[in-house]
Amino acid sequence: MHRSDVTEAILEAKREKGLKFTEIAAAVGRSKEWTTAALLGQETMSQEEAAAVVTLLELDPKMGQILQEVPMRGSLDQAVPVDPVMYRLYEIVQVYGTTIKALINEEFGDGIMSAIDFEMDIQRKADPKGDRVVITLDGKFLPYRKW
Amino acid sequence: MHRSDVTEAILEAKREKGLKFTEIAAAVGRSKEWTTAALLGQETMSQEEAAAVVTLLELDPKMGQILQEVPMRGSLDQAVPVDPVMYRLYEIVQVYGTTIKALINEEFGDGIMSAIDFEMDIQRKADPKGDRVVITLDGKFLPYRKW
Amino acid sequence: MHRSDVTEAILEAKREKGLKFTEIAAAVGRSKEWTTAALLGQETMSQEEAAAVVTLLELDPKMGQILQEVPMRGSLDQAVPVDPVMYRLYEIVQVYGTTIKALINEEFGDGIMSAIDFEMDIQRKADPKGDRVVITLDGKFLPYRKW
Amino acid sequence: MHRSDVTEAILEAKREKGLKFTEIAAAVGRSKEWTTAALLGQETMSQEEAAAVVTLLELDPKMGQILQEVPMRGSLDQAVPVDPVMYRLYEIVQVYGTTIKALINEEFGDGIMSAIDFEMDIQRKADPKGDRVVITLDGKFLPYRKW
Amino acid sequence: MHRSDVTEAILEAKREKGLKFTEIAAAVGRSKEWTTAALLGQETMSQEEAAAVVTLLELDPKMGQILQEVPMRGSLDQAVPVDPVMYRLYEIVQVYGTTIKALINEEFGDGIMSAIDFEMDIQRKADPKGDRVVITLDGKFLPYRKW
Amino acid sequence: MHRSDVTEAILEAKREKGLKFTEIAAAVGRSKEWTTAALLGQETMSQEEAAAVVTLLELDPKMGQILQEVPMRGSLDQAVPVDPVMYRLYEIVQVYGTTIKALINEEFGDGIMSAIDFEMDIQRKADPKGDRVVITLDGKFLPYRKW
Amino acid sequence: MHRSDVTEAILEAKREKGLKFTEIAAAVGRSKEWTTAALLGQETMSQEEAAAVVTLLELDPKMGQILQEVPMRGSLDQAVPVDPVMYRLYEIVQVYGTTIKALINEEFGDGIMSAIDFEMDIQRKADPKGDRVVITLDGKFLPYRKW
Amino acid sequence: MHRSDVTEAILEAKREKGLKFTEIAAAVGRSKEWTTAALLGQETMSQEEAAAVVTLLELDPKMGQILQEVPMRGSLDQAVPVDPVMYRLYEIVQVYGTTIKALINEEFGDGIMSAIDFEMDIQRKADPKGDRVVITLDGKFLPYRKW
Amino acid sequence: MHRSDVTEAILEAKREKGLKFTEIAAAVGRSKEWTTAALLGQETMSQEEAAAVVTLLELDPKMGQILQEVPMRGSLDQAVPVDPVMYRLYEIVQVYGTTIKALINEEFGDGIMSAIDFEMDIQRKADPKGDRVVITLDGKFLPYRKW
Amino acid sequence: MHRSDVTEAILEAKREKGLKFTEIAAAVGRSKEWTTAALLGQETMSQEEAAAVVTLLELDPKMGQILQEVPMRGSLDQAVPVDPVMYRLYEIVQVYGTTIKALINEEFGDGIMSAIDFEMDIQRKADPKGDRVVITLDGKFLPYRKW
Repeated sequence: MHRSDVTEAILEAKREKGLKFTEIAAAVGRSKEWTTAALLGQETMSQEEAAAVVTLLELDPKMGQILQEVPMRGSLDQAVPVDPVMYRLYEIVQVYGTTIKALINEEFGDGIMSAIDFEMDIQRKADPKGDRVVITLDGKFLPYRKW
Repeated sequence: MHRSDVTEAILEAKREKGLKFTEIAAAVGRSKEWTTAALLGQETMSQEEAAAVVTLLELDPKMGQILQEVPMRGSLDQAVPVDPVMYRLYEIVQVYGTTIKALINEEFGDGIMSAIDFEMDIQRKADPKGDRVVITLDGKFLPYRKW
Repeated sequence: MHRSDVTEAILEAKREKGLKFTEIAAAVGRSKEWTTAALLGQETMSQEEAAAVVTLLELDPKMGQILQEVPMRGSLDQAVPVDPVMYRLYEIVQVYGTTIKALINEEFGDGIMSAIDFEMDIQRKADPKGDRVVITLDGKFLPYRKW
Repeated sequence: MHRSDVTEAILEAKREKGLKFTEIAAAVGRSKEWTTAALLGQETMSQEEAAAVVTLLELDPKMGQILQEVPMRGSLDQAVPVDPVMYRLYEIVQVYGTTIKALINEEFGDGIMSAIDFEMDIQRKADPKGDRVVITLDGKFLPYRKW
Repeated sequence: MHRSDVTEAILEAKREKGLKFTEIAAAVGRSKEWTTAALLGQETMSQEEAAAVVTLLELDPKMGQILQEVPMRGSLDQAVPVDPVMYRLYEIVQVYGTTIKALINEEFGDGIMSAIDFEMDIQRKADPKGDRVVITLDGKFLPYRKW
Repeated sequence: MHRSDVTEAILEAKREKGLKFTEIAAAVGRSKEWTTAALLGQETMSQEEAAAVVTLLELDPKMGQILQEVPMRGSLDQAVPVDPVMYRLYEIVQVYGTTIKALINEEFGDGIMSAIDFEMDIQRKADPKGDRVVITLDGKFLPYRKW
Repeated sequence: MHRSDVTEAILEAKREKGLKFTEIAAAVGRSKEWTTAALLGQETMSQEEAAAVVTLLELDPKMGQILQEVPMRGSLDQAVPVDPVMYRLYEIVQVYGTTIKALINEEFGDGIMSAIDFEMDIQRKADPKGDRVVITLDGKFLPYRKW
Repeated sequence: MHRSDVTEAILEAKREKGLKFTEIAAAVGRSKEWTTAALLGQETMSQEEAAAVVTLLELDPKMGQILQEVPMRGSLDQAVPVDPVMYRLYEIVQVYGTTIKALINEEFGDGIMSAIDFEMDIQRKADPKGDRVVITLDGKFLPYRKW
Repeated sequence: MHRSDVTEAILEAKREKGLKFTEIAAAVGRSKEWTTAALLGQETMSQEEAAAVVTLLELDPKMGQILQEVPMRGSLDQAVPVDPVMYRLYEIVQVYGTTIKALINEEFGDGIMSAIDFEMDIQRKADPKGDRVVITLDGKFLPYRKW
Repeated sequence: MHRSDVTEAILEAKREKGLKFTEIAAAVGRSKEWTTAALLGQETMSQEEAAAVVTLLELDPKMGQILQEVPMRGSLDQAVPVDPVMYRLYEIVQVYGTTIKALINEEFGDGIMSAIDFEMDIQRKADPKGDRVVITLDGKFLPYRKW
């Protein structure tokens, strides 16, 4: 059984039960962002978190075990994503990548924003001209080590 | 004269005058994020904004004219960036791309977060375990049109 | 069940019943362009639209549910399409891309033509030297936001 | 002297004289779309057309000769364009390519829309919700030959 | 049932019956080149042509219907072919491509050789130093349209 | 001095003298196809052939020496050509590659058409529906050796 | 049945019977190099050669027929091989490719070493500092044809 | 001064003096294969070897120093070479790569042929049907280490 | 049966029995690094080593035979890995590759660190600021051979 | 002035003065590994470190300023390095990447080895069978954050 089989079973069960990711996240006791990433095969669950998913979605218990294993990460099939939602994120890296680097380095010195010690938050912001998506990326600054 | 010549002249002058991007942004009257992107050749300045840059950095006035032209966007040389700061952003798209799509679609229905009607904010968040970089992406939700 | 299984089942049923895309579009109550895109897995149907497809083509009702889910978009297998019909469109982007950009920017200023708030129309234009295909792309102009 | 030197000289002169592509097109006596493509190195001018450009922009007469040579076409540097204006066009091919093929083949039978016996028109369409860009692609249908 | 299933069934039946492509072409009433391309999924047959194939090779009649549908063209798996027969053709494009363009443009002016209104002929030419393969590509010249 | 400098000088001189490739070929005493390929850096000239070019085009004699050196072949910048004339040839390989292989192997057995012991001829064929380009590729059949 | 199914069946039977490629080659009556290449789907066997393989390995007779068909050549999955044995050969081309070209052209004039009229020999050479692999590539020189 | 400047100067001097690689190799006291590779920037010369080159070709002595530095190896511009001489070598890796691996592993066990402790020899072998190029690759077998 | 089937069976059995790689390595009598690589299809086991694995994990004995065959090496699906653990290793090559080359060549002269006569060790190093991963790569220096 | 100009000037001065990287590192007061990386444009120096380099190598003081700026990292030209020293490191990632991931995750749980809070050490280890290169990669373990 591969991790992708588990993801597929989760999406099938979610569709049949008419559940939302936010509802599964509530059952798991984690944010909707982290839980969705874990359900899509990008994070590692604890035994309790996996058990909550197995119970709520009535999955094969073996799948619960696989949810606790460290996954092979990477959710896209191509180096440059084609789906328009994900391409826009990629475009932001292409267009604003050097800007982000310049400002992080100006503020913090030489180093990076971690993508591991990292949180993400996605919100809807009401706006009369059309609601807005607000994605907040929050990662620890890691300075380059000298030796 | 190419747009890249203007970018190079700006960085040379900035280094010689010991200015920061935030200081140039203050002179321009825009956010540090937008101004840095414009200086790096990713945004179009108004006549006043370009004039402020030319004056502050003592550039050739012809460069001020080029800063007002719509640029050919794209700040990276490769499809997959190699510099670690920019790769981490790309990695976020690779690992969390499907999660972001799933949650945007769950909350808003079918559509995308615009990368055009879009703002970006970069902040330092103090943290006793190590300060954090917080990048906020704020884009209008655009629903798919049916016809 | 994957979205591609639904697409395959739709094409199989369409072939057996001898239906055209324009006939299915009439049953759905949308343009032939949008409906074909939806049937090929690139748009999201409403409950009524999906029901009309399921009824007309006698599909498994579960497929109707999948037609209402936001798809992972992207209808080509390669970055550069090989089929001659689609390559000609790609060639137009390759050859006339900078022209289109130059004229949009000359007329509207800095911004893009949306591919989301977007309609498309495909017509036959009679011509004694050989009929012509006329494809009209109609997208909202989105100006770059400054902040 | 390369064709790209001519393009650069044209853009430099156009900037200095404050001319628009539509104004140059008027002097040339062709549509703004075709003229812009020719100025950007994608079409071949007649002697009269090239002379009009040389006179209006006060170019080196040798450049007029190069404008009459068949160019090596291709206006983008990459297989997948990064600039957002041009990427949206590419995205349309990626997302709607199979739809366009299906509808052309349904209406005309097996064949393609020519990208050679081809015209293009770009218009602004006023719309209270935001003006729209309308691009019309008009190419001869070419049926596959059997032998 | 996919087009590739039909191709595979055709090759299997051809092997079992010990038929040659030229013999199938004779039954179809078309050239060996066009017929082989059609059998390999690159051309669209008429009802009579498809019926001849189904009868001769004793195929499932449903396959005859698929032979009449416009195929998704492209017979190679990679952008650069690896099989030595096909690589030599690709090499000819790589080495002589600019020569062919220069001579077509010198003789005909600006335009292309169509790959749609196109015929191909493959012959053996006896030669005491070793027989030769002669491939003739015969396509309509399409001049670029001005507008 | 690189081979590409020689090519550029040849094209510059050809333009200034208003010569055609066929006229240079006549002076060289070879076919227009081979001579054009040699001028574009894809073939090796003999001393006499190179001398004829140097004399006719009034080139630096050193260039005559370089025309006699074996070149690094390859006339395109990309794996998949973008210029429409050359793309159509590439498309023929993509669409008809397996057909050509099948028919060569059916007629000759296992082996290839040489691209080295190879001639090419390009002709205009008058046709009331529009003149046609006829490209003939004529290469020795090379059987695979067994050992 | 695909050629790759035959290759897999051959390797399975070879493992079960504990045979070596050199032993199969002896039964076939060809060199170990050619026979291994044929068994791995890169050469075409005669009826006798195929029969010897079918008998020795007790294969389905249908497989013997497929061994006599011209294969689609290419034994690697990627453009740049990853397995260290095959990468070292690729590295030799990368590092010594221009050297080999220079010396072949110096000795023979303009032309290539055929990879079709070609033999290969692989030997162990005893050496006190560690035995050596000696691979001999022996191909006919093919001069470029002028016309 | 880059290594490629040295290579260019060597080739220029070699052309002017009418020297062959074999003649330079004789002066250097190494095989023609190794010497050519070193002149083309793929090997490191000793002080004496470099001095012999500088004297024979009358180069700038600084170039002699650069010939003694370890080069950045890699003589091709692309992952897949386009020049026909070098492509044939690449084709041998593509077609016979798995054969070579299978036979090396059958004879020696698990390990590779070194491309470092490696020699190469290129010879002309007279043959009435056309002379042959014989390339011998001779590398130490390196067994995989277990630990 | 493919090597990847064996890897999958091993991971399935390991999960069910709750074993660690270090425990399997102890049973095999090799280091945890080598044993894990062998279990993941990158090394060749002896009969005793394979037998230990088959016994401990209760595998099909045929799998033990496959564990003794030389594998087709390469554990990643892409040229540039996406999983963050493996990307960091790739990033080290990208950022520090020229540094490593410069220092190896400064210390040893022209040559490489073998990846065949090679050992690897992975340790945890306790550190109050957060434990550290220490990977030691230990390969024989192989000097380039001159001839 | 670009960072690459500084690197080139450093290498030129180092060659002329006959200095080693280890000697420059001693003057800088850092390890040879970090100093070499900084000189090759992959690390950021402090004012004192840069001054030491400028003094020792007699560089333009402006270069000292550039050595203190955060560089755009990435020392290779390609995604897959061709130089054999660097390819061997890449090969280790390809062959042992999944092994390293499996063992890090088994020992530490879900997380990565940092390439930022990272040190590297390169040593020669004497060995009667041939000296060995020992590269030690020492990076902080970063656990994935849950939220």
